[in-house]
Amino acid sequence: MSGEPILYDCDPGHDDAIALVMAQRSPAIDLLGVTTTCGNATIERTTENCLRILEFIGAASVPVARGCYRPLARPLVLGTADGPSGLEGSPYLPPATKALEPVHAVDFLARKLLEAPEPIRVVATGPLSNIGLLILKHREVLPKIRELIWMGGVFYRKSEFITPTEFNAFCDPEAVRIVLDSGLPMKMVGLDVTMQVLVEAPQYEALGKIDTPLGRVVVDWLRFYEKLHRNSMGVGGALHDPLALALVIDPTLVRFRPAHIGVDLSGTFAFGATVADFWNERGEPPNAEIAHEVDADRFFDLLYTLLSD
Amino acid sequence: MSGEPILYDCDPGHDDAIALVMAQRSPAIDLLGVTTTCGNATIERTTENCLRILEFIGAASVPVARGCYRPLARPLVLGTADGPSGLEGSPYLPPATKALEPVHAVDFLARKLLEAPEPIRVVATGPLSNIGLLILKHREVLPKIRELIWMGGVFYRKSEFITPTEFNAFCDPEAVRIVLDSGLPMKMVGLDVTMQVLVEAPQYEALGKIDTPLGRVVVDWLRFYEKLHRNSMGVGGALHDPLALALVIDPTLVRFRPAHIGVDLSGTFAFGATVADFWNERGEPPNAEIAHEVDADRFFDLLYTLLSD
Amino acid sequence: MSGEPILYDCDPGHDDAIALVMAQRSPAIDLLGVTTTCGNATIERTTENCLRILEFIGAASVPVARGCYRPLARPLVLGTADGPSGLEGSPYLPPATKALEPVHAVDFLARKLLEAPEPIRVVATGPLSNIGLLILKHREVLPKIRELIWMGGVFYRKSEFITPTEFNAFCDPEAVRIVLDSGLPMKMVGLDVTMQVLVEAPQYEALGKIDTPLGRVVVDWLRFYEKLHRNSMGVGGALHDPLALALVIDPTLVRFRPAHIGVDLSGTFAFGATVADFWNERGEPPNAEIAHEVDADRFFDLLYTLLSD
Amino acid sequence: MSGEPILYDCDPGHDDAIALVMAQRSPAIDLLGVTTTCGNATIERTTENCLRILEFIGAASVPVARGCYRPLARPLVLGTADGPSGLEGSPYLPPATKALEPVHAVDFLARKLLEAPEPIRVVATGPLSNIGLLILKHREVLPKIRELIWMGGVFYRKSEFITPTEFNAFCDPEAVRIVLDSGLPMKMVGLDVTMQVLVEAPQYEALGKIDTPLGRVVVDWLRFYEKLHRNSMGVGGALHDPLALALVIDPTLVRFRPAHIGVDLSGTFAFGATVADFWNERGEPPNAEIAHEVDADRFFDLLYTLLSD
Repeated sequence: MSGEPILYDCDPGHDDAIALVMAQRSPAIDLLGVTTTCGNATIERTTENCLRILEFIGAASVPVARGCYRPLARPLVLGTADGPSGLEGSPYLPPATKALEPVHAVDFLARKLLEAPEPIRVVATGPLSNIGLLILKHREVLPKIRELIWMGGVFYRKSEFITPTEFNAFCDPEAVRIVLDSGLPMKMVGLDVTMQVLVEAPQYEALGKIDTPLGRVVVDWLRFYEKLHRNSMGVGGALHDPLALALVIDPTLVRFRPAHIGVDLSGTFAFGATVADFWNERGEPPNAEIAHEVDADRFFDLLYTLLSD
Repeated sequence: MSGEPILYDCDPGHDDAIALVMAQRSPAIDLLGVTTTCGNATIERTTENCLRILEFIGAASVPVARGCYRPLARPLVLGTADGPSGLEGSPYLPPATKALEPVHAVDFLARKLLEAPEPIRVVATGPLSNIGLLILKHREVLPKIRELIWMGGVFYRKSEFITPTEFNAFCDPEAVRIVLDSGLPMKMVGLDVTMQVLVEAPQYEALGKIDTPLGRVVVDWLRFYEKLHRNSMGVGGALHDPLALALVIDPTLVRFRPAHIGVDLSGTFAFGATVADFWNERGEPPNAEIAHEVDADRFFDLLYTLLSD
Repeated sequence: MSGEPILYDCDPGHDDAIALVMAQRSPAIDLLGVTTTCGNATIERTTENCLRILEFIGAASVPVARGCYRPLARPLVLGTADGPSGLEGSPYLPPATKALEPVHAVDFLARKLLEAPEPIRVVATGPLSNIGLLILKHREVLPKIRELIWMGGVFYRKSEFITPTEFNAFCDPEAVRIVLDSGLPMKMVGLDVTMQVLVEAPQYEALGKIDTPLGRVVVDWLRFYEKLHRNSMGVGGALHDPLALALVIDPTLVRFRPAHIGVDLSGTFAFGATVADFWNERGEPPNAEIAHEVDADRFFDLLYTLLSD
Repeated sequence: MSGEPILYDCDPGHDDAIALVMAQRSPAIDLLGVTTTCGNATIERTTENCLRILEFIGAASVPVARGCYRPLARPLVLGTADGPSGLEGSPYLPPATKALEPVHAVDFLARKLLEAPEPIRVVATGPLSNIGLLILKHREVLPKIRELIWMGGVFYRKSEFITPTEFNAFCDPEAVRIVLDSGLPMKMVGLDVTMQVLVEAPQYEALGKIDTPLGRVVVDWLRFYEKLHRNSMGVGGALHDPLALALVIDPTLVRFRPAHIGVDLSGTFAFGATVADFWNERGEPPNAEIAHEVDADRFFDLLYTLLSD
């Protein structure tokens, strides 16, 4: 009996690596394919990282297709949260031997979606360039996407550690707008919620008890990631991407609330802001479900279980 | 022995009315003059409201000068929090008999500042049009302003009841930018902090014990204001403007933190957003102190005391 | 001995129809394929128009691939110059029997370019959405494009009949920016120059002498087009698209001058403006050659010859 | 019998100097006062230049009030057409002994307008900051302005020597918008028209025959101005400001056409563009008369006559 088939679009990245581990190990998920985008690093690096990670975690059979090398309508801005290589501090990951799919990510996504007997879920954890391009080029696949779960945007700023604009949205705001305008069922797991899924001392202690090769590597990734994260975000490592992926396994980890979201495509300081109209002042119907509450403890329980089994 | 001389720039408004009561009754304050701006209502209404309030509360001798009828660079957008008249539900305030100063607010402000032996504090609780115009027309008075305390902007969005753009900033964002660029020492008391100064059941109970004519009027104002506020803000009446004024009396009510603030002058959904760079990513020196924590209980104690004396 | 192989990207349209006639009849051109975009009308209509035209003019063997149904980053705005169908007043064109290529225009373009032994020229006469998407998805084909000749933009406004923003640029300004930033050798044949290629009484007289079925159809097209054009442009029919195509046959018809061009992606009244920096005030190297002078008489001579042969 | 009373708002500047000569010498004009603004140079320099010029040309009795030191909503950008001092190459103009009016330009303008028995004409030749500030602060004077004649904006770009955005509009576009929205009767004498009033060899020859001290100074100014102008504009000296002033003396020198004008307040390359809707596509009533044709010969005849008398 197999899990739910999903497609995963990403820019790995340490937290993408952990999300891929979870996807690979969860019986609830059948990973149909992975597509890569620029974001945390250049498309060359995120693609190489993706191949290495999949091979390393025993998921070499999962097909990978390379996607956008730049955002749809802006010059490329690279993230810094994962270091220059996009997966800093992981020297033990050997170069990938696995081959890429011979097509662009959007063509791979279109084919997989059209082939699927039922609409399927897409999880995206980087800038939405690939999904935006998919909608621009293949609007016929829209009915085959059951839902898009995206790690992106920010809606509440509860502390100064949470920036008013989230990086994935800032990097390709036009893609966000294309997706929001497409009518696709969309769940946004914003920075304000993922920043509550922090790896701190108690989490390290629990993870430390998982005495398997993979468990040790994950802890290693987290130690590096935490250091980089602390530099750029001011707090310990937050498991942004894994939380989005985990919602396929257990949708009750996060509570959502619907609203119409606008994305600022001009502007200076708030450029790329995702502004939710919770009071419906714009009079527009909701175009996304917005994460507003997370049960971080249960998320970590899920992570430990997947790593321990 | 008299209080600290201040100038008060406002667009009354129920909460401005309460702030004026506090200013009038506090021995710590010597109210040198009041200037009016459009914002909560047209300049005609806010000015008439101001005159009526001052006469009603026994402050008829405080000079009032009328200011801007529109923002510096945008068409006028009126607030809705205080109803069409800007002071809805106060039929008992008789028309003012008191005369206006025969000069524009900016000329009045310039004169008062230049006449003052020492630099003085200005408290502003509406759009910053008058202060912006003052800087444009009379930059020579800048050294005579000890500090500007402004109720405006928003920096944290802790709940969906807090909008990403605060009305005073939205109404005249260019004026905000002029002030921020002027080098004026500035304290911003943002919506996220003033929304923590809520009049709820316990506050009504305490206020209900103040059995004086003024006490009863203030409660009446609050009842009307609360109803309007609940419609537009989703929660009970928040004492935005009184909190800014109270900081003259007791600066310890609010904690501040410095940062560089940018204001978005273009953009769509986040137009008028005041974006604080708490991590100094822009590399610019701070241009304001930003309120981030308020002791609401002590604020209400101060309010009760001033009303009871 | 065959002509120069070219690819033609268009949104027909009456003047596109005449350009296709010229391409089909000129021995200097070998039309490798035609791709369609939205612009003058929806993608469904421009594609159907394209198929009908090619079949009607005896070019049924030229492959056609359908392209973008919307601009890259903006909602679709349709042109009005060719009427609701995009080819108004041509009831005699029978429905197409010819089949479309089974791939999206960008994949068709990529394949044709990669297959070509030498870099080839692309002529584009509508919004640049397809070319922009091609660059986003297949940057590897850039070296295979010898030159892009585009009917679009406007640089001089010599009379009030010339709008400050040209429709193709206004419709998809982000695509223009992608192309300009790509380093592609580009010739822009702007509205100010094409507006000098007007079909007036002398041209009708000359065309009237071409007593062939095709000659009569072209005159019919021009009559309809002129009426629509006069409504939207205030003068008679200008042969915008045919001029761009004709430059493959005779590059000396137009004089060009290099400059750096910026496209305004925000703004209100000048949104989509293509602003050439003729004095190099920005200090950027030229990114396009800009048409500035046309020999309209010689263009019409070429048209008559192609129709008469 | 005296001339028509006018107010002149400027940022001298060589061509302003010549305009002031014409105003001073024409019996058709009664110069009530001059106000200065930043633009060609800082307010300190334009004001000093203005005082020196008036004293030098025998108009020391005309009152001068200093105005805006910066645009209303943007940082100051200085023009370069008149050199660093704003009046480069005029070492023989002695420092002014004449005193400034003790009020800001807007207060001076307001007083003069309110005192005037009939509405009067204002000629403005720099950025519109003072006029914008006047409207913001004293809307009651609007009915006392018979007409504003402004040298500013650009509508046609007939050659690459004409930039798509004119400096005065670029410097303070918000002020332009305030004026356009105010309902003030406005004539815009744009760069495309003033660039047709060029001082070339024939004009120098005619001017050379005016063997008076003032004639020789004007020729000297023109020589310097021409050199600077040629550097920044690519052609010889164009008499921008004098043409606007001359329209008070002879309104038939220029033909106008009404249109609704929008000013771009955001945007990058076309920021500050004044976009006239000659075909009324926006459906808005005209808000200005736009110069579109000038009789340069007759303008020069007028100039020679005024200098010779």
